[in-house]
Amino acid sequence: MRMYDLIQKKKEGKALTAKEIAFFVRGFTFGSVPDYQASAFLMAVCFCGMTDEETAILTEEMMRSGDVLDLSRFGDRSVDKHSTGGVGDKTTLIAIPIAAACGAVVAKMTGRGLGHTGGTMDKMESVSGMKTTLSPETFYENAEKIGICVVGQNKNLAPADGKMYALRDVTATVDSIPLIAASIMSKKLAAGAQNIVLDVKCGRGAFMKTPEDAETLARAMVAIGTRLGRRVRAVITDMDTPLGCYIGNALEVKEAVEVLGGGGDERLRNIALELSSHMLSLSLGISVEEGRCRAENALDTGAAFSKMKEWFSAQGGDVRMLDEPSLLPASKEQILITAEEDGFLAEMNALLVGTAAGALGAGRKTKEDEIDHGAGIHLLRHCGDYVKKGEAIARLYASDEEKLAEGKRIFLSALRYEKKEPSVPPLIYKVIK
Amino acid sequence: MRMYDLIQKKKEGKALTAKEIAFFVRGFTFGSVPDYQASAFLMAVCFCGMTDEETAILTEEMMRSGDVLDLSRFGDRSVDKHSTGGVGDKTTLIAIPIAAACGAVVAKMTGRGLGHTGGTMDKMESVSGMKTTLSPETFYENAEKIGICVVGQNKNLAPADGKMYALRDVTATVDSIPLIAASIMSKKLAAGAQNIVLDVKCGRGAFMKTPEDAETLARAMVAIGTRLGRRVRAVITDMDTPLGCYIGNALEVKEAVEVLGGGGDERLRNIALELSSHMLSLSLGISVEEGRCRAENALDTGAAFSKMKEWFSAQGGDVRMLDEPSLLPASKEQILITAEEDGFLAEMNALLVGTAAGALGAGRKTKEDEIDHGAGIHLLRHCGDYVKKGEAIARLYASDEEKLAEGKRIFLSALRYEKKEPSVPPLIYKVIK
Repeated sequence: MRMYDLIQKKKEGKALTAKEIAFFVRGFTFGSVPDYQASAFLMAVCFCGMTDEETAILTEEMMRSGDVLDLSRFGDRSVDKHSTGGVGDKTTLIAIPIAAACGAVVAKMTGRGLGHTGGTMDKMESVSGMKTTLSPETFYENAEKIGICVVGQNKNLAPADGKMYALRDVTATVDSIPLIAASIMSKKLAAGAQNIVLDVKCGRGAFMKTPEDAETLARAMVAIGTRLGRRVRAVITDMDTPLGCYIGNALEVKEAVEVLGGGGDERLRNIALELSSHMLSLSLGISVEEGRCRAENALDTGAAFSKMKEWFSAQGGDVRMLDEPSLLPASKEQILITAEEDGFLAEMNALLVGTAAGALGAGRKTKEDEIDHGAGIHLLRHCGDYVKKGEAIARLYASDEEKLAEGKRIFLSALRYEKKEPSVPPLIYKVIK
Repeated sequence: MRMYDLIQKKKEGKALTAKEIAFFVRGFTFGSVPDYQASAFLMAVCFCGMTDEETAILTEEMMRSGDVLDLSRFGDRSVDKHSTGGVGDKTTLIAIPIAAACGAVVAKMTGRGLGHTGGTMDKMESVSGMKTTLSPETFYENAEKIGICVVGQNKNLAPADGKMYALRDVTATVDSIPLIAASIMSKKLAAGAQNIVLDVKCGRGAFMKTPEDAETLARAMVAIGTRLGRRVRAVITDMDTPLGCYIGNALEVKEAVEVLGGGGDERLRNIALELSSHMLSLSLGISVEEGRCRAENALDTGAAFSKMKEWFSAQGGDVRMLDEPSLLPASKEQILITAEEDGFLAEMNALLVGTAAGALGAGRKTKEDEIDHGAGIHLLRHCGDYVKKGEAIARLYASDEEKLAEGKRIFLSALRYEKKEPSVPPLIYKVIK
């Protein structure tokens, strides 16, 4: 078999066989297929696509390129939750304690934030002492005992994906639905959970800009997981505007605690309940309505918040910070942003708000950057609200005035005012089974 | 400027600016643009194409990546002739002595054969003593004195093309008209002739399979040359079936001598006259009809054959071999191929005949292979002829019986018989100005 022929075949719009896809993935991972052939192939995939079957085979090959976790000890109860990335998206911190409090098992790996979106691992680490590297024994033990354990992603999880993503990232071959779906699902499948709930974001702050694109991606991922014997559900949700009132690591932990305490932002509470309902439905084999009922109950009784504390405590986290969020790290400099004119806040561009949070110190431009757990944005008003000139819209936090100024400049560019009341996009577009 | 953005732009189907194309060609040639980005870009070009302007800019940048010959001392008289590659295509050996005998100057670089097609340089070298590497002084001096000098291609002629072609060859990005046109024309333009006549082959033995594709390529090349201030003409000719009666290096020299002696194959004579008419028309600023008249005269008077001998002699060739072709190298083993059935020879697939000649020793599979100047095929019957079972069709020559057997096997697969008289494709499809 020659890589040349595979490139030519894909370029002609034909579907590759399982053997051909395996040849590509293994050759690429082990270096016998050079990058220049892989990138030409990936570009041809961008133009010609892949069938559902090809995509599933690609995903399985990528999954098998490294370690595959065995969560079979948890039977049908193991459930993973994945977001395609958003701004202010702290739903994992809320949904997984809810799910675990109701009997699901979340033994999960997670990543760091990059670019304008945050990562659960950075948020967890804003609580002092919290460890995200544990021995395999502790990982399984914690999951068994508490129902949750979340660690940093194993470097040998789907290494083909890491290598392929790095190449796609510099060759403008990222935006292909089959490649995105295979990339996400290869890691999710290798992480071993029997049930997977995907939060597919759409809008200005998401990789998928329209609900239609998000739905195509969601369907592709559900198809892959189902073909490979997992139960998968995808919820398409809005990321045109940031989620909740806080963006930044410690600030987002604080907001998660608010919601777990029964209060907090209504949209955030809703999305966390929606996702945990599906997690419970898959994990326990119950209806989504029944899942919703149990999830609300876990919030109302405080069971979910207790579960969050158990989880953090078991991983070395200083739980006093959850009981008293004022103990969480906070950047020393702050500035109040006020409305520049009278009108409705017609736009609060999630991409730019995320970029502003990054500039304040809450994010990374490159993997090597250090982040400031205390930096970020507290939104006082939301998209759709009517504001008067001079009224407070947001408070920004950073470690120094230079970052504050840069964050402010970007944040202001994210806002657009209108005289007419704007239509605000729905929070949840669709559920794909 | 970032290569990533250029790939993305081309992928979106947009035209690149002159600066962007220069950035790509220079970066790729000097190594600051890695192969994996270049191959992704080239694949995007395969899908999205290039405008005439982009193609001309790309060609000019590739031309300027190395040496550019200065033939200005020959004024408007310098003329180059290029064939896109064929089987049995020895027209250069005939057309350039005709053109030089009539006052044109052919100071030209040429290549070796590769794959199923031959190269003029190998044919020249089948004459003992013939040198294809000369000092620049001798090159210009010979051209000045005799009107012809033909040497091997300077390695620093359009090095960007060499590097790009090597990458395209292994990434299935060869079959893009703008890239093919830029590749050919960058070398032709760097070789300096003011006038260029292109013989664009079409059919089974050519890179372009249909007259339509050949015309698209021809128009692209004429457009490039014209934009860059050269006079260019393209003649689209048949390569469905081999040209003339001989395939193989010494055998083709022998056939060229036959035509220059006033005899030889009718189709071959015709095509050589057509091409030399255009060479004379451009070079001397006369009509094609006038060019044809002078070309025929040069053949009939023997002036063209004398010019061939002057040319070979000036480059060290043993001219006795031209006067007495039986002195040319000949492989010692031979076999007669006879018709396997009664019927019309409906197909004599040029690609397979070329491959058979290669197997006999007349060609190379890789650049490093040695060739046998005396090997090849003498066609006794042509496509369209009626033959009876057992009648001689061809004679094959090789240095040993193993090669002879392999050549025979492939040659037989090139033939197809039919009871009905087949239609034979025209020799010359079209002239593009």
